[in-house]
Amino acid sequence: MERIERHACFGGWQEVYQHTSKTLNCEMKFAIYLPPMAEEQKYPVLYWLSGLTCNEQNFITKSGAQQFAAQHGIILVVPDTSPRGESVADDSAYDLGQGAGFYLNATQTPWNTHYNMYDYIVDELPTLIEAHFPVTHQRAISGHSMGGHGALIIGLRNSERYRSMSAFSPIVAPSQVPWGKKAFNAYLGEDTALWKQYDTIALLNEVKNPLPMRVDVGLDDPFYQEQLKPELFANVCDEKQFTYSLGLHQGYDHSYYFVASFIGEHIAFHAKHLKA
Amino acid sequence: MERIERHACFGGWQEVYQHTSKTLNCEMKFAIYLPPMAEEQKYPVLYWLSGLTCNEQNFITKSGAQQFAAQHGIILVVPDTSPRGESVADDSAYDLGQGAGFYLNATQTPWNTHYNMYDYIVDELPTLIEAHFPVTHQRAISGHSMGGHGALIIGLRNSERYRSMSAFSPIVAPSQVPWGKKAFNAYLGEDTALWKQYDTIALLNEVKNPLPMRVDVGLDDPFYQEQLKPELFANVCDEKQFTYSLGLHQGYDHSYYFVASFIGEHIAFHAKHLKA
Repeated sequence: MERIERHACFGGWQEVYQHTSKTLNCEMKFAIYLPPMAEEQKYPVLYWLSGLTCNEQNFITKSGAQQFAAQHGIILVVPDTSPRGESVADDSAYDLGQGAGFYLNATQTPWNTHYNMYDYIVDELPTLIEAHFPVTHQRAISGHSMGGHGALIIGLRNSERYRSMSAFSPIVAPSQVPWGKKAFNAYLGEDTALWKQYDTIALLNEVKNPLPMRVDVGLDDPFYQEQLKPELFANVCDEKQFTYSLGLHQGYDHSYYFVASFIGEHIAFHAKHLKA
Repeated sequence: MERIERHACFGGWQEVYQHTSKTLNCEMKFAIYLPPMAEEQKYPVLYWLSGLTCNEQNFITKSGAQQFAAQHGIILVVPDTSPRGESVADDSAYDLGQGAGFYLNATQTPWNTHYNMYDYIVDELPTLIEAHFPVTHQRAISGHSMGGHGALIIGLRNSERYRSMSAFSPIVAPSQVPWGKKAFNAYLGEDTALWKQYDTIALLNEVKNPLPMRVDVGLDDPFYQEQLKPELFANVCDEKQFTYSLGLHQGYDHSYYFVASFIGEHIAFHAKHLKA
């Protein structure tokens, strides 16, 4: 593991590392923000999953999250969104292949040799972080758009591993919308039983006591109706009488200006559960 | 003037406009952040000047300034750093030509037909802003690196037009350092008397009562010794017994992580003087 960036930021350090991932079978980068902390102190971790076309840079340069992580004493870990490299299968579309891993384990060729983002995020990356950085085993997970989908499915399937989950503008029903159907057909094939393991709505229908969850969506998000469908999330949570928070925000769109405007509230939400 | 971007952000609006500049003889873009405000309300303006290689996007996507502008009720106006376009003279180096206007009025060919950023920032842009947006005539000015140089020379030469000035990592002595000598030779020629009009140290030696000023520099900035030389700023201010604040910050570098970490303090500093 090699550190390739280090910048002082809000009294702490914004760093970027490169390492060889066994799960993804390629070199990967991740970013980590370390708040100001005393020697031998440890902090809980919020994992952030980014959306289509992003890498480990977008969130750390655009969200302003470090300010709030410093205030609350939370370490931020920000992985890339897919395996990377010349030997990794890709597609010319922005919504398939590199930059579009959809946080699943692919079963279909040519994707199944590298596209195991689910296992990377749930197992390999936390193991690496917990071996090398001053972190506790308290974890939370959040993300934006495709990364909001990732945060919710991972939180729903691993409630013993996380304290809370949240999402901005998530793709909650990938099995039912164009982005998700295209990706799942390519990565998972036609076995729609398998699709359900990676679909927030399908998983909410199965689980009993989901983690504390907060979702925010902009009402002027151009993907609201066709790709995001937050009403499906509210409906299943209401049916199953789950506690949740769904914020619908007038004027806000799908950009990082939306994430930046509410990331302070998300980090406060996770801090409450991580430090309870 | 045409609006080309609009995003809800911290309860207000981050917008980008395109207009034809008479001063620069080309199409220009600028960004403006409008905090949440009541109808018929007006707010003062902080002009932000960016550094080498930047355009109107860097500050608005990376600084997190909108949060603080919203808190204090200040409008942010963020121009590009040079004239732009295929018909505008350019150079393949990052520190000359497009993206490197140095906030001066060029006298030398081929630069003198477009490179009049000084007049654009001091006159044309504020006139445009004050004709079209809900602003008062209270103005402040700030910037980063080449833009810190711009903010200081403009504030020093126009103390009747601004209430306060500040800078991150400014080039305070362009006549004495490689970035400035290269640019001034190209844009202004060999007349070093003219150089003094665009040199913070030379101007501080001339003025009597400069505006309130705050400067911050990172002690791990790789340009600190060769290009920035903040000790020259402190020396002349001390000699002339000017009130100033110079913050030197351990660990911080030249990046927007440094700007983001202290932009809240700069906006609070300007708010105090804009609303006095």
